[in-house]
Amino acid sequence: MLAAARAEFAARGYQKAGMRAIARAAGVDAALLHHYFGTKDRLFMAALEFPFEPRAVVEKVFEDDPASAGERVAAFVLELWEQPPVRERLLALVRTAAVSEEVAALMRSFMVTELVDRVAARLDVEQPELRVELVMSQIVGLAVARYVIAVEPLASAPPEVLAPLLGRTVQGYLTG
Amino acid sequence: MLAAARAEFAARGYQKAGMRAIARAAGVDAALLHHYFGTKDRLFMAALEFPFEPRAVVEKVFEDDPASAGERVAAFVLELWEQPPVRERLLALVRTAAVSEEVAALMRSFMVTELVDRVAARLDVEQPELRVELVMSQIVGLAVARYVIAVEPLASAPPEVLAPLLGRTVQGYLTG
Repeated sequence: MLAAARAEFAARGYQKAGMRAIARAAGVDAALLHHYFGTKDRLFMAALEFPFEPRAVVEKVFEDDPASAGERVAAFVLELWEQPPVRERLLALVRTAAVSEEVAALMRSFMVTELVDRVAARLDVEQPELRVELVMSQIVGLAVARYVIAVEPLASAPPEVLAPLLGRTVQGYLTG
Repeated sequence: MLAAARAEFAARGYQKAGMRAIARAAGVDAALLHHYFGTKDRLFMAALEFPFEPRAVVEKVFEDDPASAGERVAAFVLELWEQPPVRERLLALVRTAAVSEEVAALMRSFMVTELVDRVAARLDVEQPELRVELVMSQIVGLAVARYVIAVEPLASAPPEVLAPLLGRTVQGYLTG
């Protein structure tokens, strides 16, 4: 089922990929696929070993006032990265996206649908999608600079030093 | 030969690019390529033509007050990227750094010496190197999100829309 899911997601993109088509390709009943994975985002996460659930994160981080979401985003991101398997998986996805347009397209449609659009809907600024994507760009860039290029002192800076600096930037993009 | 090398590195990344393929694309014998440049990493460095001179940029951007450097940094970066060959070269550097610790190390020592330390010396904040590297992380991340992952609307946003948002973030890191 996961192989069929990967093929369907790759062929049609996240948004257009259908649970029914995936079930058909895998030779199983659609009900079984739903039973195992529930929703399309969960199936995608399982198929690509995507290491966190955007939908749950958005709900948790934005259940309170967006005016203080910056520090919650920073805390979540930095805590996520402190788990080496998660960090490795995220960096592997960025690396793969950087050399494969197919994977880049897949990540793009997944992130836009499950994360950008959901956060943007909660913001009261002009061009909210652009703001959310600027937050994403800072998060991706921080991961690359800290863990891939591993430039010092950034690579060794403790999360509690980075949190307020990252939090302020995120807040600026979201509501500033 | 350098043009063929750049094309191959940009297309395949450092690790997968082949000396033989570069020689073939350049219409020369592989032995000749080895004779001129030795190993692939030396060829890479020669082909790099790092597309801006950090020392000159630092002097230009920071000759005025650091309190208004954010907008000058943003203007410089966005203008640099509007030149497709420059953009392509910078992205090739990020891609190769992501898959080669050797290139990452190369980039790291070059950037720290020529850029981070020079800017940090002009700042009046605690941990100035960390601040400069956070600026770098935002710049790298913006390039990846805008040009590699190419997520919309960020990928198509005009420079004049991005400039004030990026400028404010940079300013926050430098002096905030």
